[in-house]
Amino acid sequence: MYKYEIVHECKKTGARAGRFITPRGVIETPVFMPVGTLATVKSLAPEELKEAGAQIVLSNTYHLYLRPGHGIVERAGGLHKFMNWDRPILTDSGGFQVFSLSTLRKISGEGVLFDSFFDGSRHFLTPELSMQIQRALGSDIVMAFDECTAGDADKKTAKTALDRTIGWLKRCAAAELNEGQILFPIVQGNMFEDLRRESLDKTLPYAKCGIAVGGLSVGEPKPKMYEMLDVLKPLLPKNMPRYLMGVGSADCIIEGVLRGIDMFDCVLPTRVARNGTAMTKYGNMTVRNAEFKEDFSPIEEGCDCYTCKNYSRAYIRHLINTDEIFGGRLLSVHNIRFLTRLTQDLRKAVLEDRTEEFAKAFLAEYKI
Amino acid sequence: MYKYEIVHECKKTGARAGRFITPRGVIETPVFMPVGTLATVKSLAPEELKEAGAQIVLSNTYHLYLRPGHGIVERAGGLHKFMNWDRPILTDSGGFQVFSLSTLRKISGEGVLFDSFFDGSRHFLTPELSMQIQRALGSDIVMAFDECTAGDADKKTAKTALDRTIGWLKRCAAAELNEGQILFPIVQGNMFEDLRRESLDKTLPYAKCGIAVGGLSVGEPKPKMYEMLDVLKPLLPKNMPRYLMGVGSADCIIEGVLRGIDMFDCVLPTRVARNGTAMTKYGNMTVRNAEFKEDFSPIEEGCDCYTCKNYSRAYIRHLINTDEIFGGRLLSVHNIRFLTRLTQDLRKAVLEDRTEEFAKAFLAEYKI
Repeated sequence: MYKYEIVHECKKTGARAGRFITPRGVIETPVFMPVGTLATVKSLAPEELKEAGAQIVLSNTYHLYLRPGHGIVERAGGLHKFMNWDRPILTDSGGFQVFSLSTLRKISGEGVLFDSFFDGSRHFLTPELSMQIQRALGSDIVMAFDECTAGDADKKTAKTALDRTIGWLKRCAAAELNEGQILFPIVQGNMFEDLRRESLDKTLPYAKCGIAVGGLSVGEPKPKMYEMLDVLKPLLPKNMPRYLMGVGSADCIIEGVLRGIDMFDCVLPTRVARNGTAMTKYGNMTVRNAEFKEDFSPIEEGCDCYTCKNYSRAYIRHLINTDEIFGGRLLSVHNIRFLTRLTQDLRKAVLEDRTEEFAKAFLAEYKI
Repeated sequence: MYKYEIVHECKKTGARAGRFITPRGVIETPVFMPVGTLATVKSLAPEELKEAGAQIVLSNTYHLYLRPGHGIVERAGGLHKFMNWDRPILTDSGGFQVFSLSTLRKISGEGVLFDSFFDGSRHFLTPELSMQIQRALGSDIVMAFDECTAGDADKKTAKTALDRTIGWLKRCAAAELNEGQILFPIVQGNMFEDLRRESLDKTLPYAKCGIAVGGLSVGEPKPKMYEMLDVLKPLLPKNMPRYLMGVGSADCIIEGVLRGIDMFDCVLPTRVARNGTAMTKYGNMTVRNAEFKEDFSPIEEGCDCYTCKNYSRAYIRHLINTDEIFGGRLLSVHNIRFLTRLTQDLRKAVLEDRTEEFAKAFLAEYKI
C-alpha cells in the first residue's frame, strides 16, 4: 500500500526527488511537514494548509494522549476526522516529549514513568502504549518509541539510550497496527559516529517503508549534525523515504536534502510566526520592527502565498503589535508556504541535477 | 450613490426588509455587522467573513487613531485595502470608546481630552478630528461624533450630553468627507422619552442617508431599551436605514427588527467565541463544559457554517480547553453565521408578513 519511488537522484550529490505513495495520496519529496501538536496546526484551517502546499502533517502522541485522550480521538473516528484533515498524518511516538517536556520519574528497559507537563498526573509510557495510542489516533505513519538524548550527552548515556531504543523498537515492531498504518523506526546514537552506525545496523531490519534519523537538532552545533548525516548517507536504505526529525530551518533542510534526506518537520514556521517573525529567502524578518511601519509591500516580493498576495508588512506589523491573532495566522501561512516552496524548489533542482548550485545560490542570499 | 429601498414592510409590525445600495455593493437588511475593531474581525480572514454571510463590517475610529494611526491607514490606500475587505465598512466616531475605555481628562463643548487606554498618551478628540480620521480611514459610512451616557445617568447629565451631541453633529455635518462617504447622525437622550424625542427632532435635519440610535444597550434593563425604541419607531424616517448601535444578542436583534430597526453591530459573537461560547437557537452553549467531551455532533444541527459542516463539539471543546486559537476561530465563524442567518430569517419573515410569528417561535426556544 505504501511505496517509495525515486523519480530522480541528483548525479553529483545523491539528493533525491521521489514520490511516496500512501493510501491517503502521493507525497512528493523532499517534503516539509507542518506540526499540528494538539490536532491543529496552530491557528490554521486544513484548507489553508493545503493552499500553503502542505502534503502531510505531523501530530504529537504525547499531547493527544494527555489531552483530549486518544480514546476520545478514536471514538471521534480517528485523528483525520477529528481535525478535518484527509491527507496523510504522521504521529511521533511521545518519546521525545516525555524527555523534553515532562518531569521524569523513572526510566527503565520497560518504559518511562513521568509526570504530565500540564497537570502533574503520573503516567507510564511504554513502546506498547505508544503503539496503542497511535493505533487509536489512526495516523498513517507511526513512529517507533525511542529515547532521544541531548546534543551534549556523553557516550555512555548515548549508548544506553541506543540500546534501550533498539529494545523498544523490537516491541514496537511486534505490536499490531491498523490496516494502512506503517511503522518508521528511528536511528539514534547521538553525536558518535560508531554509535550512529551501530544504531542504523540494528534498526535496518525493522525499516520496511521508511526510516527516521532522530536525536539531531537537539542542541548540537549544525556542522556536527551535518557530520552525522554524512556518516549515515551512504548507509541509509535507498528504497524508502528518510525522515530527519525536528528539522525545519531553511539552511538545515537544504543541507539535509544534500545528504539524501526526504522528509522534514518542525514547529518553527508557526512558532516564530506567533512571535511576529517571517521566514524569507533573506533570512528571518522581525515584522514587529519600526522599519516596517509604513512598508506597504508584501512580506516577500513574488511569494505566491495568501498572505503575500493580500496583505502588507505594515498591516501585519500592526496586527502583531496589537496582539491580533490574525497577524500570527498570516505569518504562519507565509512561513509554511516558504518551507513547502523551498522543498518544491529543491525537488526541481534535484530533477535538473543542479541541487548543489541551487543550495549555493540560496545560502549565499540567506542570512542565518 | 447611496439609496435605501424598502422591499417590504411587515403589515402587522412595521418591520422592514430593505436594500441599502452603496458604492461597494447592496446590503440586504436587516443586517448584522461583525466588528473589526483594529482593522481585523478577531482571528478571521475576510473570505471567512463573507462565507459566514457578512455584508459589511464595522471598525473603530478610536482604536485605529491610536494604533496604527489613521495616517498609516490612509497611506496604505485606506482601510479597505489595508485589511483586504472590499465590501462596505462603517466606522464609529470614537465617541463611545473615549468614554468607555479612556481616562477622561476634560469634556467640553469643544471636544474631549483623554488619556489613551494603552499607553497613557494624551489626546484631544473633537468632531472635526473624528471626521478627519474617518476620512483618512476611507470608510463608507461615517458616524457622527457623539456623547453616549451610561444607562443609569440622571436627566441633567443626559440632557447636557444630548446638547453637546447636537452641537457636535452640526460640526460633523460641516466637515468635508471623501466622495462616496456618508454621515449617519446618532440619536441620544438616554432613557428619557422626551429627551429621545428632542434628540430625534434636532437630529433629523442631518439624516440624509441613514440614522443611528445610540446610547442603548449601555447597562439599562432590556425592557427599557425596547421602550425607547417604541418611542422612536413612529418618528424615525422611513426612507433610510435605521441603525441600532452596539446590539448583537439574538433576542435584542429580533426586538429591534420588530421596532423597525435595520442595522445592528456587536462584538459579542467574536468575544464570547474566544471564551468558548457558541451562540445557538437554544441560547448560549458553553462548549468548554465536560458534557461535550465525547459529543461528536456539530455545534448546531443543520447549521450551514464552515464550523458546523466540518467539526464536532468534542473537537472544539478540546481546542478551547488547550487554548488553541483555532477553537475561538471556529466558534467566531459559527457565531457570526448564527447572527447573519438570524437577520436573513427575519428578512424572510418580514417579506412573508409573519415577523411576529417568527419572533414568537424563535424566542420560545431561545434561552436568554
